[in-house]
Amino acid sequence: MSYDPTNIFAKILKGELPCHRVFEDETALVMMDIFPQSKGHTLVIPKAASRNLLDADPAVLSAVMPLVQRVARSVQSATGADGIRLAQFNEAPAGQTVFHLHFHLIPAYEGQNLGAHASGRADDAELAELAKTIADALAANAA
Amino acid sequence: MSYDPTNIFAKILKGELPCHRVFEDETALVMMDIFPQSKGHTLVIPKAASRNLLDADPAVLSAVMPLVQRVARSVQSATGADGIRLAQFNEAPAGQTVFHLHFHLIPAYEGQNLGAHASGRADDAELAELAKTIADALAANAA
Repeated sequence: MSYDPTNIFAKILKGELPCHRVFEDETALVMMDIFPQSKGHTLVIPKAASRNLLDADPAVLSAVMPLVQRVARSVQSATGADGIRLAQFNEAPAGQTVFHLHFHLIPAYEGQNLGAHASGRADDAELAELAKTIADALAANAA
Repeated sequence: MSYDPTNIFAKILKGELPCHRVFEDETALVMMDIFPQSKGHTLVIPKAASRNLLDADPAVLSAVMPLVQRVARSVQSATGADGIRLAQFNEAPAGQTVFHLHFHLIPAYEGQNLGAHASGRADDAELAELAKTIADALAANAA
């Protein structure tokens, strides 16, 4: 399986498509998932081109995981979630729909079924506010 | 939330309980999940004591992710899976049941529903054979 540079995350990384950005540095972009599985569903996207975990540069994985951790903490503090699920899908049978490596951070709330399907595209104003709240939490939780 | 050193993975790491071991080095233990969500469901368990991603040492995360990648590739080649799902749960509402940091690598097979509940404890002979097959693949896929 090869990397297709026209995938939607590659276009977002190049600035050709908009996103609800939480954070960006030289190694990764953090943004809201517009089809959230729960309120505060956030994506961490390494900038380096790889299809998924299987073909990624191990050095990129090592570099991005501390950020994944900080984003997880920030999503939790910003949303008040009772737990956080980290998920990363490799190939379509595993649930991958965009073929650029990304990590999902999905808040879990007591009494809500996480396994349910996404209810559709989220409201942009709500996503923008979540992005800002999580960004503020991330800035307060600097490396 | 604090780390409870009497959790079942801590006991396995200390050798007080058995496991179907795939691989072990100074930083991590790799073993079969005995309640697999699909055939070949494998766990990567950093040895350092942490409850989950939220309280882990970032250096441990950076150190373990290249191994998670190699195990993912090895599980795929050993099982012939069509995809691999990486999952890591933080706190009970997110699905965490053992409170020592661990990464799930769950093979996905075309036409099989990954969301289904585990069907129960797997057969030990089958787990032992899977552990050996994945260990062989991992040795062939050395860093």
